[in-house]
Amino acid sequence: MKYIRFIAPGKEAEVGILLEGDRVIPVSSLVPGLKKGDMMDLIKYAGISGGLPEPPVSGCLGQQSYDLDSVRLLAPIERPIHDILCVGVNYEDHLRETEEHLGKESFIKPPKAVYFSKRALRLMGPGGRIEGRLDVDEALDYEVELAVIIGKDGKKIPPCQAEEYIFGYSVFNDISSRNLQTGHGQWFYGKSLDTYASMGPVIVGREELPFPVELEVRSFVNGQLRQHSNTRNFIHDIPRLISELSQCITLECGDIIATGTPSGVGMGYDPPRYMKKGDQVICEIEKIGKLTNIID
Amino acid sequence: MKYIRFIAPGKEAEVGILLEGDRVIPVSSLVPGLKKGDMMDLIKYAGISGGLPEPPVSGCLGQQSYDLDSVRLLAPIERPIHDILCVGVNYEDHLRETEEHLGKESFIKPPKAVYFSKRALRLMGPGGRIEGRLDVDEALDYEVELAVIIGKDGKKIPPCQAEEYIFGYSVFNDISSRNLQTGHGQWFYGKSLDTYASMGPVIVGREELPFPVELEVRSFVNGQLRQHSNTRNFIHDIPRLISELSQCITLECGDIIATGTPSGVGMGYDPPRYMKKGDQVICEIEKIGKLTNIID
Repeated sequence: MKYIRFIAPGKEAEVGILLEGDRVIPVSSLVPGLKKGDMMDLIKYAGISGGLPEPPVSGCLGQQSYDLDSVRLLAPIERPIHDILCVGVNYEDHLRETEEHLGKESFIKPPKAVYFSKRALRLMGPGGRIEGRLDVDEALDYEVELAVIIGKDGKKIPPCQAEEYIFGYSVFNDISSRNLQTGHGQWFYGKSLDTYASMGPVIVGREELPFPVELEVRSFVNGQLRQHSNTRNFIHDIPRLISELSQCITLECGDIIATGTPSGVGMGYDPPRYMKKGDQVICEIEKIGKLTNIID
Repeated sequence: MKYIRFIAPGKEAEVGILLEGDRVIPVSSLVPGLKKGDMMDLIKYAGISGGLPEPPVSGCLGQQSYDLDSVRLLAPIERPIHDILCVGVNYEDHLRETEEHLGKESFIKPPKAVYFSKRALRLMGPGGRIEGRLDVDEALDYEVELAVIIGKDGKKIPPCQAEEYIFGYSVFNDISSRNLQTGHGQWFYGKSLDTYASMGPVIVGREELPFPVELEVRSFVNGQLRQHSNTRNFIHDIPRLISELSQCITLECGDIIATGTPSGVGMGYDPPRYMKKGDQVICEIEKIGKLTNIID
């Protein structure tokens, strides 16, 4: 299934299922009693119940359904339960551009996966406006990433069981202010500015995609292709990330893992191609969709 | 006031006030209707109401009070609302030992404050057992830190107003697995292992201490003094930290800022003096108290 959060005209935010033919059905019509508009409640319910009831086929929908065109999509998860678990330099090509830009003095390739966290009080969603803090740092950058949403609590998960702990996948834009990222020693500050995390347009349930996932990943700024790779090019694949993180850290239902970005970010160009006010940035992942944001 | 979470014999966890003479009074007897055992609810209430009602003097307490000796203290906050906001190398002496240990290849002194985050699903409290993950990393280290608990939401807070945003102070032990900290490029993973964050024994309300705070800070392992400094030796003081963080990131009521540790951590000794199973570690800050934990 494809899960969304949306607002229909004159209504409150709801969680829904996006059906074939671009019809939207509110989850409340399938599972009464879930907290309205709260994707976390749905993820927990699905984890406990082993899934959701099958929605009716498109031709048999009642009045409680909408055309996708008639609703406004929101970030699938509004308020993450914890800071986003991020993986740094997880594509070979991006590793090379990071070394070149940051220099050997401030970045040395570690032998193991790089983990950092990104604070996001709220996620921006499709069409959301990113408050680019060009007043403090002009090096405003984009990073398209596959987001993995955890579906149940887990610790010491073996790689072969990692898929069972996944609720689904989404598109993530890990926005950064590069001078803050490098100037404060650790990456956290330059990654955690308000509005610098965007996710959507949908969460695709893990059952929809073969595992391991092999998906084309792209980003565009003002219509121009900037990044293009495939998740098969991960240095550390999803089973390994989930297994390694959970060796020492309990993963919780609703946790979001941003799996890293390929080359072609703004800082990788010579001269760098950072974003400015009014720019449109699109992050796109095959079979999930396009996440569009505007720099404000 | 001094705020605690505790369990009286045969009762559920409660939030209380620690009075002169080591008497404990449950907050529920001062402010009915707060969520039982939830310090976050009290912090929010205090922020909205401008404080708590004055408790009765010790001699006039009713039956609903306890001797401190008769209750078990818990971490003042059980489940932080976000990952802990941590400040790296914020004492000059610790900066030198960090450079010496990590080497110029993996740590270069940044010109600005170092911020990172520490995931803690739950905080350990006084007497809590730290699950030292010596199976994955034997370099298990302690760090005594002054914790600042934010009392109301804020953005772009000027340094001169920083104190208004503070609810209170506590003692924090930022436990680390040093090889994981350095081996994964960023510090996050080696800092975020389950049970690696301990806080307590109390939160001292900001009104109890002159500002800026100048407090003696010490840690002991098995009774032996390891760290000793004073918060007046901060490289970046609390007004600057709150102001800088909030320039770009909304601070929320209940957020915890761990303000950095002085020299004398295990990795600073030659040879290093890491903790092992059965060790007792005490973090102590003047006017707040002693936080004792055992390595399991």
